[in-house]
Amino acid sequence: MGLWFTEKQTKDFGITAKINKSLHSEQTDFQQLDMLETEEWGNMLVLDGMVMTTKKDEFVYHEMVAHVPLFTHPNPKHVLVVGGGDGGVIREVLKHKSVEKATLVEIDGKVIEYSKKYLPEIAGELDNPRVEVKVDDGFMHIAKSEKEYDVIMVDSTEPVGPAVNLFSKGFYSGISKALKDDGIFVAQTDNPWFKADLIHQVYHDVKEIFPVTKLYTANIPTYPSGLWTFTMGSKIHDPLKVKPERFFDINTKYYTPELHQASFALPKFVKDLTE
Amino acid sequence: MGLWFTEKQTKDFGITAKINKSLHSEQTDFQQLDMLETEEWGNMLVLDGMVMTTKKDEFVYHEMVAHVPLFTHPNPKHVLVVGGGDGGVIREVLKHKSVEKATLVEIDGKVIEYSKKYLPEIAGELDNPRVEVKVDDGFMHIAKSEKEYDVIMVDSTEPVGPAVNLFSKGFYSGISKALKDDGIFVAQTDNPWFKADLIHQVYHDVKEIFPVTKLYTANIPTYPSGLWTFTMGSKIHDPLKVKPERFFDINTKYYTPELHQASFALPKFVKDLTE
Repeated sequence: MGLWFTEKQTKDFGITAKINKSLHSEQTDFQQLDMLETEEWGNMLVLDGMVMTTKKDEFVYHEMVAHVPLFTHPNPKHVLVVGGGDGGVIREVLKHKSVEKATLVEIDGKVIEYSKKYLPEIAGELDNPRVEVKVDDGFMHIAKSEKEYDVIMVDSTEPVGPAVNLFSKGFYSGISKALKDDGIFVAQTDNPWFKADLIHQVYHDVKEIFPVTKLYTANIPTYPSGLWTFTMGSKIHDPLKVKPERFFDINTKYYTPELHQASFALPKFVKDLTE
Repeated sequence: MGLWFTEKQTKDFGITAKINKSLHSEQTDFQQLDMLETEEWGNMLVLDGMVMTTKKDEFVYHEMVAHVPLFTHPNPKHVLVVGGGDGGVIREVLKHKSVEKATLVEIDGKVIEYSKKYLPEIAGELDNPRVEVKVDDGFMHIAKSEKEYDVIMVDSTEPVGPAVNLFSKGFYSGISKALKDDGIFVAQTDNPWFKADLIHQVYHDVKEIFPVTKLYTANIPTYPSGLWTFTMGSKIHDPLKVKPERFFDINTKYYTPELHQASFALPKFVKDLTE
């Protein structure tokens, strides 16, 4: 006897995890939200049936979204996170002392509420005085912003449900306008095993807008295929030309300066998507 | 209605894949062998319930086992593959024209037989005249060999069943003896999310025997956690000091010279296992 959660990552393949109990289940205004207590991964946030984050492996995604652009930028002061209501990216952003203000714009307040309740190790910094939390539409927030941010991170769900327009070319144009003249943005852009077309499209859309466009990867065991991509668009700064003295010691479990560089070396079949 | 194969990669977590049909199922003298036709991955070889290789993602493992040591060695002529009855590593080895002879020692002849039948894209080179196939115990073969090989690759199953002694320190001593004075070996050493202790132990065992010991990784979506490690032991040659002119163009889908280098940049929690 046992209760198992299964995510069909494609129509023919998925992962399955033993759950001790369901901690919360609710249809919010935007999506189906489930918080599960799993044996292998600890507490797990699931949106529309897709694993968003787990206590055990969350550090990979959150560190790689935050530190790669923040070390690429020489002096990031104002950072915007679109989505990311679990607070994990914000926690990593705050490890950079140069950051005076980190703004989170999450469309679904329930994600914030239940992350604080059941994933306090991840969401704990959302109440930090350097953080401004807005429950609002990220697309609209971007559209209203001009030369405001040094770094923008798009920590969205897959391009279904509320996140659809966060994968549009119009959104990337808006991001460019919302960034300062030497700004950088990064977005999670799914996996190359099942979503090659998406990566190819986003990469080329971003490349038409940003002079420096690069893809990097990280291993996230609870995400489809385990190989996750991030697309970076930068107006000036090159993530592969960070001065060695720019790196300082931070407490991480995945990110290192060597891995920063190495994460841009793509498997051949992924590199082909950028050509 | 549908038939699904589920591999429990830990007692509380697994992958599940839709299968069209079972092509073959047999208890061999050594293990349970299943050949499945899956929707997502094409034909899939399963031993003792664990996915060994699939048509869709096999290239990652086979390229990374073969090309990293073969490009590290300046002139590999005689190569031994222990295990690897599906023939994928052999196929990659043969892409190196310097290799005059590639010997495969697989304990279970049925793996070879059914790979040839159902995975011809992988096993097709086992009949190449540069290949010698022996159905024999790899441990014993190593014990009887002295200064014979330039490169030895251990393409084993997990350390359960017939592969248990392929993860012992005595085996690594035997490999050192079986290698020429500038020989290199590489073994697949499982994943750091669920098998951290194994990686730590193997790494330190190998390090007591080989002057150059390094860990590298690759993403293999059908293997537990998707993040796979390989441990390399080398008597002289350093995989991070390969002369640029040593690399030549080969037809790959994962391996590139840049990725060769980058695959040794370990996530922090993996690097910690080598300390």
